[in-house]
Amino acid sequence: MHIVVTGGAGFLGVRLARTLLAQGSVALAGAAPRPITRLTLVDRAAPPADLAGDARVTTVIGDLNALLQPDAQGATPAVPPDTNAVVHLAAAVSGECEADFDLGLRSNLDATRALLQACRALGTQPVFVFSSSLAVFGHTAEQPMPPIIEDDTLPTPQNSYGIQKFMCEQLVADCTRKGFVRGRNVRLMTVSVRPGRPNGAASSFLSGIVREPLAGERAVCPVPPETPVALSSPTRTIEGLVRALQASDAEWGPRTALNLPAVSTTAGEMVAALARVAGPEVAALVDWVPDAHITRLIGSWPAGMNAQRAARLGLRADTSFDDIVRAYVRETAAPAR
Amino acid sequence: MHIVVTGGAGFLGVRLARTLLAQGSVALAGAAPRPITRLTLVDRAAPPADLAGDARVTTVIGDLNALLQPDAQGATPAVPPDTNAVVHLAAAVSGECEADFDLGLRSNLDATRALLQACRALGTQPVFVFSSSLAVFGHTAEQPMPPIIEDDTLPTPQNSYGIQKFMCEQLVADCTRKGFVRGRNVRLMTVSVRPGRPNGAASSFLSGIVREPLAGERAVCPVPPETPVALSSPTRTIEGLVRALQASDAEWGPRTALNLPAVSTTAGEMVAALARVAGPEVAALVDWVPDAHITRLIGSWPAGMNAQRAARLGLRADTSFDDIVRAYVRETAAPAR
Repeated sequence: MHIVVTGGAGFLGVRLARTLLAQGSVALAGAAPRPITRLTLVDRAAPPADLAGDARVTTVIGDLNALLQPDAQGATPAVPPDTNAVVHLAAAVSGECEADFDLGLRSNLDATRALLQACRALGTQPVFVFSSSLAVFGHTAEQPMPPIIEDDTLPTPQNSYGIQKFMCEQLVADCTRKGFVRGRNVRLMTVSVRPGRPNGAASSFLSGIVREPLAGERAVCPVPPETPVALSSPTRTIEGLVRALQASDAEWGPRTALNLPAVSTTAGEMVAALARVAGPEVAALVDWVPDAHITRLIGSWPAGMNAQRAARLGLRADTSFDDIVRAYVRETAAPAR
Repeated sequence: MHIVVTGGAGFLGVRLARTLLAQGSVALAGAAPRPITRLTLVDRAAPPADLAGDARVTTVIGDLNALLQPDAQGATPAVPPDTNAVVHLAAAVSGECEADFDLGLRSNLDATRALLQACRALGTQPVFVFSSSLAVFGHTAEQPMPPIIEDDTLPTPQNSYGIQKFMCEQLVADCTRKGFVRGRNVRLMTVSVRPGRPNGAASSFLSGIVREPLAGERAVCPVPPETPVALSSPTRTIEGLVRALQASDAEWGPRTALNLPAVSTTAGEMVAALARVAGPEVAALVDWVPDAHITRLIGSWPAGMNAQRAARLGLRADTSFDDIVRAYVRETAAPAR
């Protein structure tokens, strides 16, 4: 069993890789479990040493679009001939796509298209898990959206990242219908708490306002406290991706995207949870400095998901943001109250 | 006022060009009417003599993707610098896209993207009318769809043509949000009765079963009589495109696509209308020879539209398919009963 993970050195990619290697085998698309003999991690950067040192791991480092250019024999470094499944996590994030329209199209639409074509060229119909995003949903004064999203709610993206993700969902669906891949479109919620450093995502602060105070650093919350957010812990998010790999075609259902479950909360409640778990002096390290651009972008995203399809697959939201903070504290051994 | 029409030598393009030239001026996006000083028709073929001979008409003949490659100065033959509006009708049709996946992506997605980039390069925010299609809607046994489509029904395309049109809608919406163009996504219904010859559209027979018998020729209907179809006459379709050009941003409303109104009927009822208008001996020229592939494709399309947004713009469906047949007979001076 050979699985390719794009963005395999990123936060979710690394976590997925560790989960899959620990699990050891995968019941791909509902088939009998087979051992993972090879895990190819494709990224611009190298993965951490524990992954790079695993005998089952191959690293392919470079620009994804370049790595998807077929050679004279039609082979591509990013998608070796014996690939059974691809989990496509690599993407330009929301802030980058908003700042550079062409970069977003190249990194998200073109790369996904090339990746699908590389899978098609294999002729073996690999499972293709596409990480879409709740950013496909959005509302403005002129474009209403229900506050709670159903599985068949019409996406009306209000940023280029969401537009590109939604376009890719369509392409994955059509390549599935055509028998090129066995696609699973999965819409990830905003993942919090991400460890590490801030990234270019407009939602980056939704980890920062917990992570930085727990490390004793001040953090800026650029949206008003009442801003609703739909969150998922890293653990629940990885569960969703693994379930997508393992669900049979019948379990998975339609080619439209599946919304992962979310904890519905607000920026203010997140910081209140931080105070409850780590103490008010930690929560006091958050500075509330609204940024109009980020407030508009994050404020256009949905507040919650009625993730019925996900529930039928056994996927549940985190119990509370307090529990998410507690789990983060446990994992990082940050000072808990 | 300079308007570019891609697919300008095609059936709808020619009809739109004649309508615009006869009208003489356009109230572009709700502004005061201004005379049309130039109409550029872009197509692989030359337009008819009456258009080519009009002093206001410029013809640009060639492959659209090639004509959208910018030269060293960034100019493109298909989108001259003084372009005020583009009506993008050129497309590979449903049958072609289903037969050749890559052709569909090139002719529909890549060409629309290049056209939007050429408009963006002008820096003048031209009006951009994109002809999408009811083919964005589709259902299968696993993918239910309401029988009557609302303006916010989630499209679930069941063919590559519909997928590509829906992807282009997203790109037009985002280019509008970014201020590159003033986009109007318009979903056209199946146009019937088209004059001329059959084309590569899976829906081509929906004109053929009327047109050919009226010309004394036999025609095959490849779907069962009870197959529901959502139709619009050429006249009503052109009305919709002209309204899209002339609606102000406020009248037009959201960047999501607008469904044009449709007459809801069935293949059997169409032939019954033909019998009523032209006589049973004409209708008897239709041979019912079901084709599984076409039945699946057409059978996945919606039966009707609750086109509320279109109604607010004053757009109405044809009164009946009988009236559509009568109008076709009148226009083509075919023998009426």
